[in-house]
Amino acid sequence: MEERGIGVVETRHVTFAEPPNELTLESGQKLGPVTVAYETYGRLDEKKSNAVLVTHALSGDAHAAGVHFGEKKPGWWEPLIGPGKAFDTDKYFVICSNVIGGCRGSTGPSSINPRTGAPYALSFPFITIGDMVAAQKKLIDHLGIEKLLCVAGGSMGGMQALQWAAAYPDRVRSVIPIATTLKHSPQQIALSEVGRQAILADPAWRGGNYYAHGQPERGLALARMIGHITYMSDKSMEEKFSRKLKSENYRFSFDPEFEVEGYLRHRGDSFVRRFDANSYLYVTKALDYFDLSGGDLIPEGRPCDIRFLVISFKSDWLYPSYQSRDIVAFLRTRLVDVTYCEINSTYGHDAFLLEFDEETRLIAHFLDKTYDSTKGKP
Amino acid sequence: MEERGIGVVETRHVTFAEPPNELTLESGQKLGPVTVAYETYGRLDEKKSNAVLVTHALSGDAHAAGVHFGEKKPGWWEPLIGPGKAFDTDKYFVICSNVIGGCRGSTGPSSINPRTGAPYALSFPFITIGDMVAAQKKLIDHLGIEKLLCVAGGSMGGMQALQWAAAYPDRVRSVIPIATTLKHSPQQIALSEVGRQAILADPAWRGGNYYAHGQPERGLALARMIGHITYMSDKSMEEKFSRKLKSENYRFSFDPEFEVEGYLRHRGDSFVRRFDANSYLYVTKALDYFDLSGGDLIPEGRPCDIRFLVISFKSDWLYPSYQSRDIVAFLRTRLVDVTYCEINSTYGHDAFLLEFDEETRLIAHFLDKTYDSTKGKP
Repeated sequence: MEERGIGVVETRHVTFAEPPNELTLESGQKLGPVTVAYETYGRLDEKKSNAVLVTHALSGDAHAAGVHFGEKKPGWWEPLIGPGKAFDTDKYFVICSNVIGGCRGSTGPSSINPRTGAPYALSFPFITIGDMVAAQKKLIDHLGIEKLLCVAGGSMGGMQALQWAAAYPDRVRSVIPIATTLKHSPQQIALSEVGRQAILADPAWRGGNYYAHGQPERGLALARMIGHITYMSDKSMEEKFSRKLKSENYRFSFDPEFEVEGYLRHRGDSFVRRFDANSYLYVTKALDYFDLSGGDLIPEGRPCDIRFLVISFKSDWLYPSYQSRDIVAFLRTRLVDVTYCEINSTYGHDAFLLEFDEETRLIAHFLDKTYDSTKGKP
Repeated sequence: MEERGIGVVETRHVTFAEPPNELTLESGQKLGPVTVAYETYGRLDEKKSNAVLVTHALSGDAHAAGVHFGEKKPGWWEPLIGPGKAFDTDKYFVICSNVIGGCRGSTGPSSINPRTGAPYALSFPFITIGDMVAAQKKLIDHLGIEKLLCVAGGSMGGMQALQWAAAYPDRVRSVIPIATTLKHSPQQIALSEVGRQAILADPAWRGGNYYAHGQPERGLALARMIGHITYMSDKSMEEKFSRKLKSENYRFSFDPEFEVEGYLRHRGDSFVRRFDANSYLYVTKALDYFDLSGGDLIPEGRPCDIRFLVISFKSDWLYPSYQSRDIVAFLRTRLVDVTYCEINSTYGHDAFLLEFDEETRLIAHFLDKTYDSTKGKP
């Protein structure tokens, strides 16, 4: 049987310009009008009960599955979204939107500020995961969906999923936080901060006003290189590179000598072609502000009938399993229906973008059960 | 009883200018004349059988113990070196020297190249851990010591200790490699490389010729910030900083908001006042070239009567315990006398500079036994 895919998809955009055409952010600042870039896969059923929101990580975008016209590379979660896949588009209506603060179609620091006609740059207000989710809720309202069947995502996507449960508990039936945390730890903040410092230290950053001149390429590439080290595990790096050299012998040079150095350089260089440096600053800040600990995920006394599937990966040292177990332990104190699985992967944090077989088994079953238990409910 | 310390010490320098006044490096290049900065504590006994060489880590120097005249801060391993301490200066003659390639008195890229009258900068040849140890051996020869009782060090110091066993097995009775590895892994190379990239990307680096202009401060500080994250553990960062803010509320700023950010900034800024950026490049390269795996530590068929004490720390993720266990496993295949201890510390890689009680117990006993078994031997 031929494998069916989603095929050609298009990113759509919606701008919330009706009064009040501003989002009041957690910082107290206002942002508006807000545009949200999104894609959808599958069909919304009559009762609008089959909608699943998929949320992306730091450098992700709305293009989660299918291919754009004329391109070959599919969306970032292609193996999980489509007919017969984990997020089965024969059954579910899957939505993915770019976060605000990002640079892939939703309003962010590289967008034109309508008040000045120039890019926001550092006049862009600080945003939080809560603000990202508030913009997503406007999109879900716009699509006429009362209650999402599920919100699912890995890493920063997992934070958004948790934030949905915290901020809009009546609007979501289930949540799948993957390789994520209830709060950014000091180590995670520190790793964000060195990435930001790499950008801020690049003279080409020009205080954020580089749009007429080109990106602070070296700083942004360096931030990405640091990131990539944290996305892989010690073991996956050993398996992929070991101490292999780019040429036969040591060259005694500060140019890349080891394959792992060349790989990092390559990943850094290709990142600057698709990601805005100021977005990197703002979005990593949103990660660092994230903190739903201390009961904020489900305030005491609030009943919660959201079902949770929490997934972590054994070799993930950026968002270690203990952080997922902390989520689970908290949910159990609130007597919430929660399933937890630690997948025995060597891929490190990247595993949420690679361990498709295990993820498919867990997610497909969990969504089925959730859908069956809520079938017919609007 | 008053605690006795070493008191005031002085760094001495020796320049090897006698013919051939050059060191032939592993790269094939020559370096000379070579100056080595060193300190000694305690007294060499008549048979010169009580000499212990202590080897320093990436940013260390010859000043391992005691205080310099007019200063308050003692040497970097002060709690382990002195009368009645682990390296008991009532019994042992302790030597510590700055590595070549460094910037604390031994010949390095910031030294004046006698051929040009200007700092070497990038005309400095690439060096290896083997070259560092070759220079140390010249110092030991100069001091008239035939056989070291012990070579001990942590991190890069541990690599030098292993290198002594590999390169000069007849010149050392015992070796204490702490928090180290037989070979730099791709993750370790990657972390070195992003630090180097931070320096190379700083325009103030000027291709290495910055000595008339001042250091590439932001790049070097950033490299150090990255380093510091790897020296601590997730847990020690949580205990020290958690999510504490520098002021009461979020400031929504790219200036340090979290205490951990301020700490990293501070550690980066103070590092640039004492360390040379080009040395950082050269010494991290030496780390990356280090590879005594595949039998190079003790070639097959070579008898080895060196005693080993291998120490690692449970929460050290930069030089994880499995790397120490690999050293031990290899030594056992060579039927070598080896003791291994994993210390249950939460301090991460920094533990070798902090877990003094445990280290003292292990090292004092090991040295005693080694000394007793060799007493009277020249």
